[in-house]
Amino acid sequence: MIVNMSDKATEPEIAHVVERIREAGYQPHLTRGVERTIVAAVGNGRRHEIEALQAAPGVEKVVAIAQPFKLVSRQVRPERSVVNLGGVAIGGPGVVVIAGPCSVESREQLFSTAQAVKRAGATMLRGGAYKPRTSPYDFQGLGLEALKILSQVRETSGLPVVTEIMSTEDVDMICEHADMLQVGARNMQNFALLRRLATVNKPVLLKRGPSATVKEWLLAAEYLLAGGNNQVVLCERGIKTFETEMRNTFDLAAVALARDLSHLPVIADPSHGTGKPSLIAAVSRAAVAVGADGLIIEVHPCPERALSDGAQSLDFAGFERVMKALMEPLREVAGAPSWAEVTVAQA
Amino acid sequence: MIVNMSDKATEPEIAHVVERIREAGYQPHLTRGVERTIVAAVGNGRRHEIEALQAAPGVEKVVAIAQPFKLVSRQVRPERSVVNLGGVAIGGPGVVVIAGPCSVESREQLFSTAQAVKRAGATMLRGGAYKPRTSPYDFQGLGLEALKILSQVRETSGLPVVTEIMSTEDVDMICEHADMLQVGARNMQNFALLRRLATVNKPVLLKRGPSATVKEWLLAAEYLLAGGNNQVVLCERGIKTFETEMRNTFDLAAVALARDLSHLPVIADPSHGTGKPSLIAAVSRAAVAVGADGLIIEVHPCPERALSDGAQSLDFAGFERVMKALMEPLREVAGAPSWAEVTVAQA
Amino acid sequence: MIVNMSDKATEPEIAHVVERIREAGYQPHLTRGVERTIVAAVGNGRRHEIEALQAAPGVEKVVAIAQPFKLVSRQVRPERSVVNLGGVAIGGPGVVVIAGPCSVESREQLFSTAQAVKRAGATMLRGGAYKPRTSPYDFQGLGLEALKILSQVRETSGLPVVTEIMSTEDVDMICEHADMLQVGARNMQNFALLRRLATVNKPVLLKRGPSATVKEWLLAAEYLLAGGNNQVVLCERGIKTFETEMRNTFDLAAVALARDLSHLPVIADPSHGTGKPSLIAAVSRAAVAVGADGLIIEVHPCPERALSDGAQSLDFAGFERVMKALMEPLREVAGAPSWAEVTVAQA
Amino acid sequence: MIVNMSDKATEPEIAHVVERIREAGYQPHLTRGVERTIVAAVGNGRRHEIEALQAAPGVEKVVAIAQPFKLVSRQVRPERSVVNLGGVAIGGPGVVVIAGPCSVESREQLFSTAQAVKRAGATMLRGGAYKPRTSPYDFQGLGLEALKILSQVRETSGLPVVTEIMSTEDVDMICEHADMLQVGARNMQNFALLRRLATVNKPVLLKRGPSATVKEWLLAAEYLLAGGNNQVVLCERGIKTFETEMRNTFDLAAVALARDLSHLPVIADPSHGTGKPSLIAAVSRAAVAVGADGLIIEVHPCPERALSDGAQSLDFAGFERVMKALMEPLREVAGAPSWAEVTVAQA
Repeated sequence: MIVNMSDKATEPEIAHVVERIREAGYQPHLTRGVERTIVAAVGNGRRHEIEALQAAPGVEKVVAIAQPFKLVSRQVRPERSVVNLGGVAIGGPGVVVIAGPCSVESREQLFSTAQAVKRAGATMLRGGAYKPRTSPYDFQGLGLEALKILSQVRETSGLPVVTEIMSTEDVDMICEHADMLQVGARNMQNFALLRRLATVNKPVLLKRGPSATVKEWLLAAEYLLAGGNNQVVLCERGIKTFETEMRNTFDLAAVALARDLSHLPVIADPSHGTGKPSLIAAVSRAAVAVGADGLIIEVHPCPERALSDGAQSLDFAGFERVMKALMEPLREVAGAPSWAEVTVAQA
Repeated sequence: MIVNMSDKATEPEIAHVVERIREAGYQPHLTRGVERTIVAAVGNGRRHEIEALQAAPGVEKVVAIAQPFKLVSRQVRPERSVVNLGGVAIGGPGVVVIAGPCSVESREQLFSTAQAVKRAGATMLRGGAYKPRTSPYDFQGLGLEALKILSQVRETSGLPVVTEIMSTEDVDMICEHADMLQVGARNMQNFALLRRLATVNKPVLLKRGPSATVKEWLLAAEYLLAGGNNQVVLCERGIKTFETEMRNTFDLAAVALARDLSHLPVIADPSHGTGKPSLIAAVSRAAVAVGADGLIIEVHPCPERALSDGAQSLDFAGFERVMKALMEPLREVAGAPSWAEVTVAQA
Repeated sequence: MIVNMSDKATEPEIAHVVERIREAGYQPHLTRGVERTIVAAVGNGRRHEIEALQAAPGVEKVVAIAQPFKLVSRQVRPERSVVNLGGVAIGGPGVVVIAGPCSVESREQLFSTAQAVKRAGATMLRGGAYKPRTSPYDFQGLGLEALKILSQVRETSGLPVVTEIMSTEDVDMICEHADMLQVGARNMQNFALLRRLATVNKPVLLKRGPSATVKEWLLAAEYLLAGGNNQVVLCERGIKTFETEMRNTFDLAAVALARDLSHLPVIADPSHGTGKPSLIAAVSRAAVAVGADGLIIEVHPCPERALSDGAQSLDFAGFERVMKALMEPLREVAGAPSWAEVTVAQA
Repeated sequence: MIVNMSDKATEPEIAHVVERIREAGYQPHLTRGVERTIVAAVGNGRRHEIEALQAAPGVEKVVAIAQPFKLVSRQVRPERSVVNLGGVAIGGPGVVVIAGPCSVESREQLFSTAQAVKRAGATMLRGGAYKPRTSPYDFQGLGLEALKILSQVRETSGLPVVTEIMSTEDVDMICEHADMLQVGARNMQNFALLRRLATVNKPVLLKRGPSATVKEWLLAAEYLLAGGNNQVVLCERGIKTFETEMRNTFDLAAVALARDLSHLPVIADPSHGTGKPSLIAAVSRAAVAVGADGLIIEVHPCPERALSDGAQSLDFAGFERVMKALMEPLREVAGAPSWAEVTVAQA
């Protein structure tokens, strides 16, 4: 931590900061510039006491140097983590494709979808039982009934399932029926929920909040690891920006950055990331190219009749096209005569 | 709702949309343009079925016309709502000032703060018992102990108190000790929590999420009203943007807009809105000028020793200065000779 | 400047940074922490050479400490600047109201508008001759003809005029007809234009770019002052965010911040700031309350027939209502019994 | 265009809108709903006159249906455009890699860079002569001297060059020395510049503004095509968001969207898109996977000594690693037993 004193800071103000740094368990280290003085807090003390010095007289700015997360960091664990569930390894060599409807609507709907996505190459099934909906008048999910359908289809299809959890009260029930618990984007900083999920023996899929920085996202994951659950998969699903043609701005560079900063597997959700079925094949390829360990894609037997997110869901044929797109090689770089040839020709 | 067909839509595709609109309980109404056809869905049907038509073949875009919220709307209730608690009327003629520490840290801290802010003109006390913190390693609040301190200081000071609720499990306990329950910005779309608070007989202070549009904010409030609780106060506290000099971008126009669209009282939080003590007097004045029904301001006996949000808290003298700034008249408009004078002079 | 070395930085890497800091004209100053080393660059050297060290091996991050602007800063000039033009003092004791149409459309239109806004209390006239339009198919302004109309109406009304400049090629012509030259939001970082305007003996109204930080805005103004023109007025006109109900997010806290950091006068544009006529009275009051030195408001005799920005323009009656709103006192703070009374009563 | 009347609109207000739509050259078409009336403007009239109806009494909102751009649209030209320059085809089958320093600093610097990037597979050279810099105190480019160096190195290397143009006054001089003119992100809506470049017989590289929607970007390109220059290449280079770990948010989905909406070639700039050398290989792969027709990458012989953008430039070895990354195949999708096998096994 560095405490940057104002150019008008007095000697007693500097002395006060030095003393407070010592009280907080750090060693103070002064650098006197031409215009201003900088005081570094060296060592491992109580970080928040330095942060609060922002309010001390003569202080212009407190700047943090080290990253605030620990257990999720590659500094603590350089090798990549793999999350295993039901025979699927997220973070392993292959890209894991999770597909299924936004909401579980009926046994038939989920059964046929599982069949179709599995045939096309998906190895996990998604389906919502409890739905976070912007409006109270929208379909809120079938709840327990949906969980039971998920269980059944998991059995028949052999696909492990992930479903969203919205409340600490539902933890036991959902753990009984699902292989992985999803924390939705709007709950990324629902710390009561995170603390509860930290104590559960199930993997957690942690979606990035629509306005969360990568750092905040990793700190949300830190809640899970710090509480004892290190089976965590991160999921980029788009952030909110001024762009209105797409539902969100799909931040694919954040996938690469999160994998640089953390050992946790990172997957991507092109359905929410763009909200546009016509773009999903292209951005899914991009997500794989940037390093994503998996994809989670919304698929529905008849999107125009879906009870939620129909506008961004693929039908079965559309999903197959996406899976085929993932097999196509990258477009080649346009060739050029080598410099050697050119310089020889000029000689 | 309007379904805008693509310029390449075929007659069967248009006919299909017309039929689906009828199925959804609306009357279809066609407008055939030179290049494209528009189908309006007239009446009151099942909205989501029209939204899902986005996925139907030949459809370019589904556009909603009416606002999606109802009970919070001024169309339903044109007169302004007033929320009364402990002798304070939020939404009444006077601007209500709520002040206090970010976190309750001790009986002494809260007692002295209550005394100071009351003397300066505040009529409600804030103080956190359960704190949503970005990092699991930060101070998380004193919990029940803090609630008890709040109760005591409420008694001695006569100031009603508001405190944040983070989990459905804490509802009963917090209701016992507080006059108003705050839903923090990061929980604005914690729908499980909203649904639970809709059943409580206490006013709710609903902060706007850092990336929530005004419409999403009002829809979150709609959860409370639709569930039976209409004692709701909205609170603007800044949104996330690219600007880095301030903690958030304080969206004061949204205060005016929310009051235009909804009958609910709207207050503003300049502490989180800017994160800069030096700006709080100016933006508090602006919040009052734009129409806010109240202010909620962080005050701490010694901000540089605060366990949370010290950097943006005011000390007692700073808070007094803000209260005095609220009494100062608006700067006058620079005078000008009247047009009449000018034209006479020219004649 | 501070160079924060990575926790894996080697001694030769640190030595290299130290040497480069010396080469750049600064004194290096090391702080060795438990995990990492920090090297401060003390003195006044070549800043960009330190910034480029970001790319040196072993460097994690280069952090700037001092603000990058100089001449616009209150550190250089603590007293507030006043820009005088045609008898109007922007930055003086009174709030200056500039009003007029988005585009000059005809002599009659501008003449009647000038008459109306002057009668209501405006002391300056705005009107576009060259219009920056998102689409090439939109009305682009009357050009020279509009400038001549502006000149005439300035004569008859006595109101000094401001008009937008879009190209270095138009500088002489516009200087001949206008009292103040406006740099539009989209040209805030048109550095060729700024450099040319720095050499002109006319005040410049510099609008904040839709995605410019306050720092970038002040650095754009620095181009003008560094080039010799210190008659500069800043104008906040809203930034782009995810909010879609309003044209922009009107960043009123930035007005207060810009006035804290800089001595230049700052005005606000509620028309572009919100894009909603129904909000203009409220946010204009807020702008004055937050400290704005003036307002610039779009007014048109018949907004629904305006050739540009009709949707956000006020008609004459609407503008009068705004001017009256600026005269109304601030809503009062709700009273409370003093703490003394309460404690006495309890004794 | 659709004019959505308020639920309180009176019959005379509706009649007025109908009449104005007719005056504007459209056919009005009414749809009367239960709560409100919608009036569609059918045909091809004067669009802005309908937009201005936003200000008419009784109107709630005017909604545009058709996209506002024409010549850049795939509706006008379904096949993809190819821009040819100096033997390079942007938009052709191969991905074109443009590389070089941010600024031209010396003949040696540019010569060695050209040699290195060509050897690694680049087929075009970039290098700035006139630099748009946020601060007036930063290096502003060598100007004409840099243009001459670019010419020379173009000759010796055989690589066509692209360089940025900041002012209409420099057009002739830059056309003489460069193969392609770049409009920088901050000048995307410098309409005076766009109008001038529309008359030039050279290809233009149009960068997306940091806060421009895809629609605004395409409308900026429309200025070029409408003015007569259809040799236009679009370039995504990141947008401004709340994320602070990267310089910009690299909007790769926008590359796919722009290619869907327009026939123009689209390239991507990972250097500005992320500002982080460590991410460039990953996001370059992603850009190619999403459909980009090319990449433009900053390379410098010694980034830590670069006069501009050193922090985000690659050195020669780093650029070679990126080129190699572009050759690597996509990671494979994790296999799954087919549904058929599973159902057979269950039978």
